[in-house]
Amino acid sequence: MSTSTSEFQLTIEKQMEIVQGVELLNGVEDLYGGITLQMEKPMDSEAFLSALRASISQWIHQGKRAIWVKLPTELVNLVEPAVKEGFRYHHAEPDYVMLVKWISNSTNTIPENASHRVGIGAFVLNDKKEVLVVQEKSGKFKGSGVWKFPTGVVNEGEDIATVAIREVKEETGIDAEFLEILAFRQSHKSFFTKSDLFFVCMLRPKTFDIQKQDTEIEAAKWMALEEYAAQPFIQKHSAFSSVAQVCLTKLEKGYVGFSPVATTSASGKTNYQYVNSRDLHRL
Amino acid sequence: MSTSTSEFQLTIEKQMEIVQGVELLNGVEDLYGGITLQMEKPMDSEAFLSALRASISQWIHQGKRAIWVKLPTELVNLVEPAVKEGFRYHHAEPDYVMLVKWISNSTNTIPENASHRVGIGAFVLNDKKEVLVVQEKSGKFKGSGVWKFPTGVVNEGEDIATVAIREVKEETGIDAEFLEILAFRQSHKSFFTKSDLFFVCMLRPKTFDIQKQDTEIEAAKWMALEEYAAQPFIQKHSAFSSVAQVCLTKLEKGYVGFSPVATTSASGKTNYQYVNSRDLHRL
Repeated sequence: MSTSTSEFQLTIEKQMEIVQGVELLNGVEDLYGGITLQMEKPMDSEAFLSALRASISQWIHQGKRAIWVKLPTELVNLVEPAVKEGFRYHHAEPDYVMLVKWISNSTNTIPENASHRVGIGAFVLNDKKEVLVVQEKSGKFKGSGVWKFPTGVVNEGEDIATVAIREVKEETGIDAEFLEILAFRQSHKSFFTKSDLFFVCMLRPKTFDIQKQDTEIEAAKWMALEEYAAQPFIQKHSAFSSVAQVCLTKLEKGYVGFSPVATTSASGKTNYQYVNSRDLHRL
Repeated sequence: MSTSTSEFQLTIEKQMEIVQGVELLNGVEDLYGGITLQMEKPMDSEAFLSALRASISQWIHQGKRAIWVKLPTELVNLVEPAVKEGFRYHHAEPDYVMLVKWISNSTNTIPENASHRVGIGAFVLNDKKEVLVVQEKSGKFKGSGVWKFPTGVVNEGEDIATVAIREVKEETGIDAEFLEILAFRQSHKSFFTKSDLFFVCMLRPKTFDIQKQDTEIEAAKWMALEEYAAQPFIQKHSAFSSVAQVCLTKLEKGYVGFSPVATTSASGKTNYQYVNSRDLHRL
């Protein structure tokens, strides 16, 4: 990419003037024309600003497109100078904020931040056609008397199947094996402006004696699946009655969901793909 | 909740002293014992700090548990005082940063930020058993010669099905109808520390003349599905060959995925649930 027509371009003379006497910042290059500065050592905000300006001049000259600045909480004094230099927030986690500035005159292709939270509901069915249900001590179902599936949040880096097994164990003490995903739901504005994906996972119990967790769980028990599905709250809201119908169909007529298959990506990572294994392997 | 044993509790006398002469901040209460401050007007950082301290004293006294502070980019001067007052980053979007502080002595239940990015790949099959494929101008497939499905990112607030239709139209000019999700993949550390969910969507084309988008797309065409699946790159990586196998099975043997059903949640929102409709409605 040529920078000769860039509106951001400084003359060579001007760049040299800025660079002289100012230490440049060291960044890590990525495959998309970006530079990431992982600031770690304490720095005076004036010194940071001078070094940032000089470094950006050089990166523009080199045809770079985006500059990322990662500031750990301890370097909060550098947030204001970065924003005043035209950086905007990209994302933040408890221990840092990431800012970014597009320095090219080509179309801005900075990817958006994570957009979805992911949750699971665990449908654990025993041989007596009973489902594992709980009542929670807090949240929107508190005090409602509704018996619900154990649920949980899938955080970054966690496999859906692993979280389903863990949440069942944590809430009820039951060991279970992951079988398949029966259905999922996408909803919006569930957490600030973020969207939500909720996966209904079927598990086979390997133990049966319930040891409920006391902090979050008011009660836990095995309940006939028909009785679960017949609860007025479940019947009233189609988001719930639809899931109950899927579970009843699974029990009675052989409903097939998506089951996990380990696959390898181009970068060599092992990931789980979820597919209709019955149809895929039918002769 | 009693605050009598709270390590954060100030004596009533101390609180009154702080409150006197300092304007308190107005927050919006939520259902979980939280208060959200949506700061909008410019404010001196010293005045903010005094008002924040006095307000927090009052909220601790009232048994509140978490304080959220939303600071738009223009109020970047208030980030440093908030962090020094014990707030930590929760999340950030291009135009604001959200900070949070847990002020209760009960277990911290602040929910995590969005954890996943969501993408789609569009499997658009015409009546000649040809699939719609593209080559991209940038990204990891650039210059590789690999023909791939049109892909796109599902941002917050967007339905998976809508994005699949839109991306096909944008990249190739083809109008298509959404049918079902054939498979999906979860991967980790795909974007900083965030995880990724990628949905393989099947669409039926309603038009057939390709008008490719010039900025991102190098080439687009209809290609025999067998030829797509036989590409060395696809064969080499099981994450891709597995999807190709699902598509071939769909064509040849009647593979069934998950199709969307509109449902209503307890809060009255309409959401899409994705289920195996064939199994669900089989007599």
